[in-house]
Amino acid sequence: MGASGRKRNGFSPGPLPPSMGAAATDAPCIFCEIAARRSPAYVVYEDATTMAFLDLFPFTRGHLLVIPKRHGARLTDLPFDDQTALVRTLDEMCRRSERLTADYNVALNAGAAAGQIVFHVHFHVIPRYGEANPFHPRTRARLEEEEARAVVRELAAG
Amino acid sequence: MGASGRKRNGFSPGPLPPSMGAAATDAPCIFCEIAARRSPAYVVYEDATTMAFLDLFPFTRGHLLVIPKRHGARLTDLPFDDQTALVRTLDEMCRRSERLTADYNVALNAGAAAGQIVFHVHFHVIPRYGEANPFHPRTRARLEEEEARAVVRELAAG
Repeated sequence: MGASGRKRNGFSPGPLPPSMGAAATDAPCIFCEIAARRSPAYVVYEDATTMAFLDLFPFTRGHLLVIPKRHGARLTDLPFDDQTALVRTLDEMCRRSERLTADYNVALNAGAAAGQIVFHVHFHVIPRYGEANPFHPRTRARLEEEEARAVVRELAAG
Repeated sequence: MGASGRKRNGFSPGPLPPSMGAAATDAPCIFCEIAARRSPAYVVYEDATTMAFLDLFPFTRGHLLVIPKRHGARLTDLPFDDQTALVRTLDEMCRRSERLTADYNVALNAGAAAGQIVFHVHFHVIPRYGEANPFHPRTRARLEEEEARAVVRELAAG
């Protein structure tokens, strides 16, 4: 399927009920649930249309996810206004990431063949501390509470 | 050094001579040279402020780079207008990438420790055809002329 299957003009301009987020299954979209504050997350940033929170299985310390609150599987599913808001929040999160270490990767995966697991668009911001390959670390342990709170303290201040 | 070392307000709002692109060395920035059409590239897209062209050492077929014409090493070095223009072109290139295959990765590397080689901000768009790990392929051969022209034909039409 090409881009024609997901035309911007066909995207509802209004807010969708979060339960519609995962149309392919009956389960609600977990990022819609976080955006609606119905599911917990280590939130680092929030504004009217975007949010950033810690990846629960971080590649490196401070690994963030930046999402639009509106559901869309891919960047190309979002209206321009949401894309613009998303890049502004991405910019802010990149700046904050430099509090931890100077360098970082930004990644966005579109589709299962590209490693997308949650089908709600999200940019990864992955601080780099000298790892050989942050995209495929040997271990990817679940984030622990104490560590998560420490990272949020470093990143949540504006 | 944190984000405070590269404040947006300190960035010149006017166009810079491309030769100033690589202030750290005397060599001109190669992406500024491409943007100014002084160096060749397999250009897929161009507008007033952004450009997209083929990576000369593609991870996969159709591997694109999306750049702002204005020089900045990182996304955070760009004014908001250029960030917005960049995300719009990124959106368009993602849509075109789906002509080749449905899925793709988007990546942006900030700093040498994150694998940044050219210090002019660029998003990679990397089509995924089922490779195990597109970020560190075993071989990364230089793009050949005939293949490059074929890919440009597929992607350059609006």
